[in-house]
Amino acid sequence: MPVSRRSFIHAVGAAGGYTAAFTAMQGLGLLAPSTAFAGAPPDLAKGGGGKGAKVVILGAGVSGMAAAWELGKAGYDCTILEARARTGGRVWTVRRGDRIEMTDGSRQVCEFDEGQYMNAGAARLPSHHQIVLGYCRELGVELEVEVNTSRSALLLNPDANGGKPIRMRTAINDTRGHVSELLAKAINTGALDADLTADDKQRMVAFLKTYGDLSPDLFYKGSQRAGLRIEPGAGDERATPYDPISLKALLDEDLWNGVLFEETIDMQATMFQPKGGMDAIPHAFAKALGPKIIKRQCEVRQIRKTEKGVRIAYRDAVAGKDLAIEADYCISTIPLPVLAKIDADFSPAYKAAIARTPYRDSIKIAWQAPRFWEGPKYQIYGGLSFVKGPTNMVWYPSYGLHTKTGVILGAYTGGPAAVQLAKLPRAEQIEHTRKVIEAMHPGCGHLLEKPLQVQWAAVPHTLGIGVGWASDDEPDYRLLGQPDGPIHFAGEYLSHVGAWQEGAIRAAHRTIVMLDAQHRKGQPVTAQRII
Amino acid sequence: MPVSRRSFIHAVGAAGGYTAAFTAMQGLGLLAPSTAFAGAPPDLAKGGGGKGAKVVILGAGVSGMAAAWELGKAGYDCTILEARARTGGRVWTVRRGDRIEMTDGSRQVCEFDEGQYMNAGAARLPSHHQIVLGYCRELGVELEVEVNTSRSALLLNPDANGGKPIRMRTAINDTRGHVSELLAKAINTGALDADLTADDKQRMVAFLKTYGDLSPDLFYKGSQRAGLRIEPGAGDERATPYDPISLKALLDEDLWNGVLFEETIDMQATMFQPKGGMDAIPHAFAKALGPKIIKRQCEVRQIRKTEKGVRIAYRDAVAGKDLAIEADYCISTIPLPVLAKIDADFSPAYKAAIARTPYRDSIKIAWQAPRFWEGPKYQIYGGLSFVKGPTNMVWYPSYGLHTKTGVILGAYTGGPAAVQLAKLPRAEQIEHTRKVIEAMHPGCGHLLEKPLQVQWAAVPHTLGIGVGWASDDEPDYRLLGQPDGPIHFAGEYLSHVGAWQEGAIRAAHRTIVMLDAQHRKGQPVTAQRII
Repeated sequence: MPVSRRSFIHAVGAAGGYTAAFTAMQGLGLLAPSTAFAGAPPDLAKGGGGKGAKVVILGAGVSGMAAAWELGKAGYDCTILEARARTGGRVWTVRRGDRIEMTDGSRQVCEFDEGQYMNAGAARLPSHHQIVLGYCRELGVELEVEVNTSRSALLLNPDANGGKPIRMRTAINDTRGHVSELLAKAINTGALDADLTADDKQRMVAFLKTYGDLSPDLFYKGSQRAGLRIEPGAGDERATPYDPISLKALLDEDLWNGVLFEETIDMQATMFQPKGGMDAIPHAFAKALGPKIIKRQCEVRQIRKTEKGVRIAYRDAVAGKDLAIEADYCISTIPLPVLAKIDADFSPAYKAAIARTPYRDSIKIAWQAPRFWEGPKYQIYGGLSFVKGPTNMVWYPSYGLHTKTGVILGAYTGGPAAVQLAKLPRAEQIEHTRKVIEAMHPGCGHLLEKPLQVQWAAVPHTLGIGVGWASDDEPDYRLLGQPDGPIHFAGEYLSHVGAWQEGAIRAAHRTIVMLDAQHRKGQPVTAQRII
Repeated sequence: MPVSRRSFIHAVGAAGGYTAAFTAMQGLGLLAPSTAFAGAPPDLAKGGGGKGAKVVILGAGVSGMAAAWELGKAGYDCTILEARARTGGRVWTVRRGDRIEMTDGSRQVCEFDEGQYMNAGAARLPSHHQIVLGYCRELGVELEVEVNTSRSALLLNPDANGGKPIRMRTAINDTRGHVSELLAKAINTGALDADLTADDKQRMVAFLKTYGDLSPDLFYKGSQRAGLRIEPGAGDERATPYDPISLKALLDEDLWNGVLFEETIDMQATMFQPKGGMDAIPHAFAKALGPKIIKRQCEVRQIRKTEKGVRIAYRDAVAGKDLAIEADYCISTIPLPVLAKIDADFSPAYKAAIARTPYRDSIKIAWQAPRFWEGPKYQIYGGLSFVKGPTNMVWYPSYGLHTKTGVILGAYTGGPAAVQLAKLPRAEQIEHTRKVIEAMHPGCGHLLEKPLQVQWAAVPHTLGIGVGWASDDEPDYRLLGQPDGPIHFAGEYLSHVGAWQEGAIRAAHRTIVMLDAQHRKGQPVTAQRII
């Protein structure tokens, strides 16, 4: 009986899951691999494999675990040493009963209701991060939409618009209306005759009329797109837009970034989150790798090059013993500020680079509350509101939409704003976010409860949310992107997708290709041979 | 022990679900009801109630069921006659084994896999449709995000851009870039000096630089927002944008509507769909009302006014009997083209209005397929692609993202385009959509299988997707918005939210308020007393 291509694909799909079917489709030429997917996971097994070679990986974040996962496919014998009891590193979901311990000795205990959570670190997956999405497929991580954009969300600058928030739909569409009106006027006065042909001018003005929702005489007089003062209903209830906000009010610099946030390539719809928390991704890796590969609560104490490769001494907190592991190669995914404090015999240039590379801070503050932002008054279901000041934004939950309770972020802030916020005592930071939410949603501030604050510069074993390279062409970036003898490096800091899981994993992929090449040549690449 | 406001709300919530908690919050002044929520369901019970009064409602769509639900709360004794075996009317979800029978005698049987479905009619709920969202809360309908916008979706005009699709992110951001460049130029040449102060000019140009992602010398040279030719990765893989598409190519009229679709007030994020299919809403109403109120497979044959009220004769297809029901009042939610064919003693003006009111057609064509639109090549997860021509769009499923199989719409079309498409035999319409999808996604057309077509003008008991009033102030709209003696009317056609569940329900709310007022006066309002 002949088997059609389609039934072949379905049979493969049933047996091997999505990835198998996908690969089969590609094999049959049904899905040409895109050039944009140049970063697909490397197939090291093709090169001959790593049978017999031992690799010790420092850190069970997604970078280290993806490295172990792919190296394992090629026969390498991997061990991951992880300082914490949990895997995931900066992919950290906090739930009821979890403890947040900081380097200052402080401790917070999560009191959220069962089912509520806070993604303290990584919290979204863009559509174009195909490597991490591919692992979600391969490892069976169930995804749901992360609502990154809501036209009902708010923009608040206490110094503008009389301190009243502006709805996102209003800012976006009133701005476009005003811009269209001005450009149509300029075109019709002949200001751009040198740039546009008569035909172009005509088409351009017709376009601007649609683009800005202009009146027949080319004025912007408001638009239903910008929101309705009266909702349409039955009888005589006709949809009635608001009067437009003046261009002057919209030219507020602090609004622009909020308005354009959704156009940032990493923030564009469709965005995802794993169901139940972002840690579903590290959990899936950890389950696939198993406890034989991942050694938890094993904190690295010493890194040494040996004649054969490397020797890593560590403290096994469960066994209560100081132990050591020998391997042919090492991959360190430990964040640089943490690595800098570990006794290691890196070459001097590496040591210096590790010591001086700055990391950025980031603060997230979360509250549990009844969903006052949903429902008739605000109609906000997921998405982000933006506010001028160090708390930066209010982020509404994308899970459990239309249920009773949710976890809302009162702050998610980085860079200089995080530094500014961090100057306040934690309790004051938290109360500040309550005030911001109260300003956005008057009368609702006191509904917030069970706050949690995570400051990444103060999280042990991490000490920062991501690397802070001054440019995308740092000499130290190039240096650490090459192995120091048998010791390789990986992590978000060795990618151009900093502070994203995609970057961490792409760096891991690049590193294991180098490691595999080194292994197949039969000798360690020395630091001196770096290009 | 004193009870805090918060614990009171939580206790109410635990006992009575979200609506109870919400109402409690409103009662405590924690959530001020918004003026935008003027359309909240009427509380007829306050007026004295309808005990002893009998109402027969024609049609178990959401309009008729919402009317019965609210009238029931006020003590009215309601019976709904529904011609079909199912409830929901134009809220119709088609699954494996379901039959699609048309007025031309044709029959299609749905062969989708288990778990796959097509929302043949209503398919999305915007955030501002708070009445229907409120019923979802009240009746426990679980919602998920309907992805109405994807920046990876495509725009295709076979006559433009060499017949190649343009990505949504490219069209949106290249257009904004070009517009910003032109306006900045016009401002700097003084063309708008009469409109803008020197300070405004400066702020405006600074704004346009951010708005359009312009170069320091104010040219638009492409933007990462518009998409990446090279994805950022590790090592030397730096994010590299595409060259911008020329303004000339973007000025294609057929692109504009697609680009601006997401700004239509009813289409703005966040959008919802019930989990498992839109018919979860009518099913929830039907479950709440129960079979004592909803009589299925009972087709209305005759409508008569009587001395006491109304007498409705109908055919009970289950019992195989011709039966009749007497009531004090009637609410007809039957679509007008269907109602026009029923033997009824409406007053002449009503009869004429019912007979002449046009309804619009709409065609949806769905296919089951492996999700070739997801994954590395297209990165499309939900959302809509737009195409010039009678099929209008390709709509990707929002449920089951990242699974193996999905149901994709090859056409969702209305108005003149639907009329054009309907001229082809069904099989040709279906093949036409395959060609459109093939043009969008070359090499994938043959992966489509198990097609279904629903043409609403040919669906028995409906005969159209919605009313086609020529203006929003039709005399017939005003007439039918008042009762013809004891006979009232409701449905989307009596709202300014045509062809939406929100409109159907708001019309029902308005109608039951009129009916209740009529009942409390103790005498039927006659057609002669219409304002």
